[in-house]
Parts: sequence; C-alpha cells; structure tokens
Amino acid sequence: MAGTRKALDRAYAVIMAGGRGERFWPLSTSKRPKQMLCLVGDKPLMAMSAERMAGLVPPERVIVVTGADLAAAAAAAAPGLPCTNIVGEPFGRDTAAACALGTALVRKRDPEGIVCILTADHIIKDAPRFREILAAAIGVAGAGDRLVTIGVEPAYPSTGFGYIEAGERVAAPGNVPFFRAKRFVEKPDRATAGKYLAAGSYCWNSGMFVWSCGLFLEELKKHRPPLARMVDAVTPAIGTPDFDRVLEAEYGKLERISVDYAIMEKTDRMVMARGAFGWDDVGSWPALQNHLDRDADGNVVTGKCEALDSSGNVVVSKERLTALIGVKDLVVVQAPGATLICRKDRAEEVKEMVKRLGAKPEYRDLL
Amino acid sequence: MAGTRKALDRAYAVIMAGGRGERFWPLSTSKRPKQMLCLVGDKPLMAMSAERMAGLVPPERVIVVTGADLAAAAAAAAPGLPCTNIVGEPFGRDTAAACALGTALVRKRDPEGIVCILTADHIIKDAPRFREILAAAIGVAGAGDRLVTIGVEPAYPSTGFGYIEAGERVAAPGNVPFFRAKRFVEKPDRATAGKYLAAGSYCWNSGMFVWSCGLFLEELKKHRPPLARMVDAVTPAIGTPDFDRVLEAEYGKLERISVDYAIMEKTDRMVMARGAFGWDDVGSWPALQNHLDRDADGNVVTGKCEALDSSGNVVVSKERLTALIGVKDLVVVQAPGATLICRKDRAEEVKEMVKRLGAKPEYRDLL
Repeated sequence: MAGTRKALDRAYAVIMAGGRGERFWPLSTSKRPKQMLCLVGDKPLMAMSAERMAGLVPPERVIVVTGADLAAAAAAAAPGLPCTNIVGEPFGRDTAAACALGTALVRKRDPEGIVCILTADHIIKDAPRFREILAAAIGVAGAGDRLVTIGVEPAYPSTGFGYIEAGERVAAPGNVPFFRAKRFVEKPDRATAGKYLAAGSYCWNSGMFVWSCGLFLEELKKHRPPLARMVDAVTPAIGTPDFDRVLEAEYGKLERISVDYAIMEKTDRMVMARGAFGWDDVGSWPALQNHLDRDADGNVVTGKCEALDSSGNVVVSKERLTALIGVKDLVVVQAPGATLICRKDRAEEVKEMVKRLGAKPEYRDLL
Repeated sequence: MAGTRKALDRAYAVIMAGGRGERFWPLSTSKRPKQMLCLVGDKPLMAMSAERMAGLVPPERVIVVTGADLAAAAAAAAPGLPCTNIVGEPFGRDTAAACALGTALVRKRDPEGIVCILTADHIIKDAPRFREILAAAIGVAGAGDRLVTIGVEPAYPSTGFGYIEAGERVAAPGNVPFFRAKRFVEKPDRATAGKYLAAGSYCWNSGMFVWSCGLFLEELKKHRPPLARMVDAVTPAIGTPDFDRVLEAEYGKLERISVDYAIMEKTDRMVMARGAFGWDDVGSWPALQNHLDRDADGNVVTGKCEALDSSGNVVVSKERLTALIGVKDLVVVQAPGATLICRKDRAEEVKEMVKRLGAKPEYRDLL
C-alpha cells in the first residue's frame, strides 16, 4: 500500500525534455533545442536539471522523456543517467501525453512510485531550497490522495508566466507551505499581473508537479480517457522490443493537449507547494541578463566579444569573435551557420524569423 | 629617343598593391588586404585593376608591386599576369619607394618606357572613359617632359579625398583636358571642400600618375636622392637571383614617404589630366552603398541576409546567414573568425578596433 514505504524511496524524477523552442535560434535548432544548450555555465540546461536531483533522487530513478530523434543527444547531454532511462516519444503530443508516458514508465518499475514531473530547460538558482520543496511535495503526494503542483513565489508582475491562484492553506509537515490550488490562469496583461502580485495569493506556474502513479492515472481515466487508454496499451510493452512500435501506434491516436488543460484545470485533488528558489523559464535571449554578469557598460557576454562604446547588449559568441562599435541594446547570437542581430526589445520576433527561414529551402540546415 | 616610338607601345602599368588597409576588417587582414577582397562583384579589386587595362596595355606589360608576403596571393588574385610581373617589396616604404621600384623595373625592360602608376584597391565604373584619359596621359607623358597626374572631376564636396588645384590649361591633342598641377592639398574640412567644389579648379587626387622612366628618375634624383640611389643599386640586380637580397638591403635604408610628398609637391613638371570616370577609393564599409544596389528597405547586402523591419544597413555576409530584426543603420560584416557590428556613421573606428585586437594575442589570427 502507498504510504507503507517511505515516500522518498519511491520517488522518481521525470524530466520533460521534448521542447523544440524556437526562441533561442540560431543556437537552438530542431536537432539541438533549448534544453541541450549551455545558456548559463558550461552544462546543458537538461544536464543541470538532472544533476539538481543529486541527494534527493538517485540517477537510476531519473527518467528523461524527449523526442525519439533527440534521445541520443539527450543521453550525451546527461551522461550520468542510465541509457534505458532516456525514453523517446515518436512525435510531440504536448505535456499531458509526456506526463502520462512518464507516469506509466514509473508505475511499471514501482506501482507505488511517486513521480516528480520536472522541466528540462528552466533555471533554478537555489537548488537546495528547491530540493527541500520537492521533498515536502513528495511527502504530500506520497499519501496518494493529492496531486501537487510547484508554485513559484512571484518576484515581480511578470506577463511572461502563467499563474496559479492559491486557496486555503493545507496542513503539511515541515516548513514548506501548501495550499489548495484554486485555478490555473494564462499569462496575464500587465495590469492583471500587478493585481496578482498585490493579492499575494498567486504564484507563477512552474510547470512542475509531483504525484503518485495511482492517483494520476485515476485522474487521467476520469478527465482524459484517451490518454488513460494510451497508458493501458503501452504499459505491457515497456521494456520489450515492441515498445517503440506500440508507442508510435498509440501516440498516433492522441490529440495535442497540455497537462494543465487535460488534468490540472479539472481535478479537485490539486494542491500547490509555494516557494522561492530562483526559478526562471528563460523565455528568450534577453532573459540571460538575469543570469549572467554585466560588464561595466551593461553588456552581458558569453564567449568572445570586444566592444567600443557599446552598451546594454546581450552577446552570445562562443563560435567566433563579435566586435561591436557604437551599438546599444542589441541581442547578438553567433551560431555556426548564422548570426542573429536583433533589437533587445524585439526578441519575441525571433520566432517569426525562424518561420520565415523555414519557408526557404536553402536555410533548412540552420533550423 | 623618347617620342620616336609610339607612346602607347611603350606604356606599362604598375599597379601598387602594397596596402594593408585596416578599414575593411574583419574581411581584410594582413594576409588578405583590401585589394584582394571581392568587395564589389566576384573579383578582387586588384584583378579588376589589372583587367581594366585590357585593350590599352597588354598583360605582359602589367606589373604589380606588392608586399613580398602577399606576392602569392596577388598572383592568385590576378591570374592573367605573368608570374614574373608580380614583384614583392621586402617591407612597405610607402608609395614613393613603390613608384621608384616600379619605374626601375620598367626602365630595365625599356629605357623609353612610360609608366602608368595605378591603384589596386579603387573602383572605376567607367573603364572606357578611364582608358581614354590614360591613353591621353600616356601621350602627354610620352613626350618626356611632363609628369602627369590623374585628377578626378569632384562629384560632391568630399572630405575623404585629397585635392589637386589646377592652374592654366596645357595644350594637348584629343578631348581630355590637361592643366598645370598647381598644388596638392590634404583632405579638407567640410567648408573647405565646399569652396573647392565651387571654385571649379580643384580635382580629387586619385593617386594615379603617368610618366616616362627618364623624367621620373631625373626628378627623383633632384628631389629625393636616397630613392634615386636605391634605384641605381637595385637596377643591376633586376632579373638576377640577387634581386631579393639587394632589394631588401636597399629598402632597409629608406624612410617612409609618399610620392605626393617626395615628388609631386616639389616638381614643376607636373600636369593634371582631368576627367570623370566613376572613381571611388572605397575608403570604408559604408562606401559600398555607392556601388551596390539597395533593397526596398534601403539595405545594401552582399551574401546571405534576412531582415525583418530593418533598414539602412550595410551587410557583407558571404560566410554565413545574417538575420536582422528591427535594426537600423548598421554595418555588419561576417568573416570566418569574427563578426563586426558597427554603427554606420562610426565605421572610421574600425581601425581603433583593429588596434585594440592587436594588443590581444588571442586575436592575432583575425588580423
């Protein structure tokens, strides 16, 4: 029975690494998406996600769910994990499918397993506090009657994140506060974000969750039967040579839906752990300014850059030297086959550039 | 005697290709200076200079004076010329030395030779008119009593060129006007440039000259004896295995001086041919705007560039794709190991960037 074994010993980390993010072009490409990039420091974000579990969940219980075509790159980016823990989806079907698959994989190993759904491409500066919060969430989820979402104490009125509204406080041991998760809300406009911050009852939605296999699959059956059927069909094939074939057949039947829409907004079993642990989803190039040091002129540089009378620029230049003369507030990113030069306040349009390049066969190799 | 043979049959072109120009960094480097670059069209400027002589001076009478370390690259950049016509200076001693050496080389082949001193790194759009002017200048120089300089009809009050003030008109056959060259003046300020243009008697100094070997070497003896001694010492070694050794020894004794200072400002034998032939010295990256088409947004592009809402940029991007988002009036130049991003009105500071990089050993390969 759930609860009879210590919850931490049953905890698994499932790192969702299926993203194809275009906002970090030209460094991110379909073959090397954001989670594989060394945006901050010298390790891929995905490797940092995996290594952050050290001391809480051992590597043999850290599973990566990624695109089948990215599996080899993912294995290389997180060399500490057993190869069999890197599982490739035949195609992306959004986060609900990845969560369902991850939970099925854990349940096959341990029917009493507790699943921590983690993101592969976010930054967490305060790893010790994050592990504390996760340990508390594992404890709460381990009782088997609550899905836990990790809410981030908002630091400013961000319009770039979704929010979770907290309801009444829920009793839990330790120093991490838990609340009933009242509702999930989309990225707000500036005024609404300000109200959320002032209200004090809203957290940023980190996209991270903790649940027991049993409860999540029960909720899946209730709120998203096609996903529950996929899990039922795939589970017998896990660990057999049939797995890839069965998974592809079952994934082919699924519609794309996020776990927020499919489950979180429907279940009444959701609680939110609330905490501050230096979290950021690093949504676009200018976000690097929050994570890297500025020089005396306010330039943020990784790689090789020489600047004459230039300020406020974000320069990612590991491929070659960037030489700046008299320019302000630009994003400059050097990749092997392309250089991006973008006004810093227009980094959202990188997606539009990728779309435009996608229409030109000669640039296919750059995407 | 000079004049007894038709002047054109005695004409040689000496292309001065010793420049180390830093203003076209990062494409121009010490090993591949401006004259070797394909700035406009698909041929190096030096090759265009050599080929422009077609129909006037045959390739066997076209000589290139360049740096010894650039001789192989120069030969490759002007493949139509006999190898023996590429002569390397052991080190740069400015234009007076190069002119003296070029004239010595011509005199060794033909004591009655007429030397056309041409630049390797300028653009001439109207080659037929240029050849007409040069032919007329060869005719005038062929009489043996005049040094001829080629003055360019000024098209606007440039502050980037030196000027030549014309005196009274000099009788000459044909439709090219010749004037006494009254004085050479340095790059003027804006107000002075306006006065020169209004006066009508000033031309841009193209840095091109025509003279007979005899008269030039006579003037050299009079106004710059050390250069005349160099010519006397080197001449016996021309065409022998001793040449490089003797040249190095003699060049080592010389001070740097331009032909303008050494001879042109001192001689009273100078006349100026005046003409308009689409000449430009292409002094820095923004000058490309005068020679390449602009797109609908006013961007001038060679190579691969995709631009979203970006205008007035000069992009040289043969190495890789340049992607621009929301940027205006930049110079962007892609080279194998570096990318320059410079405000268009500050391209003069490229030299300062090169100087700064020169102080850092890790960037030596880029210079």
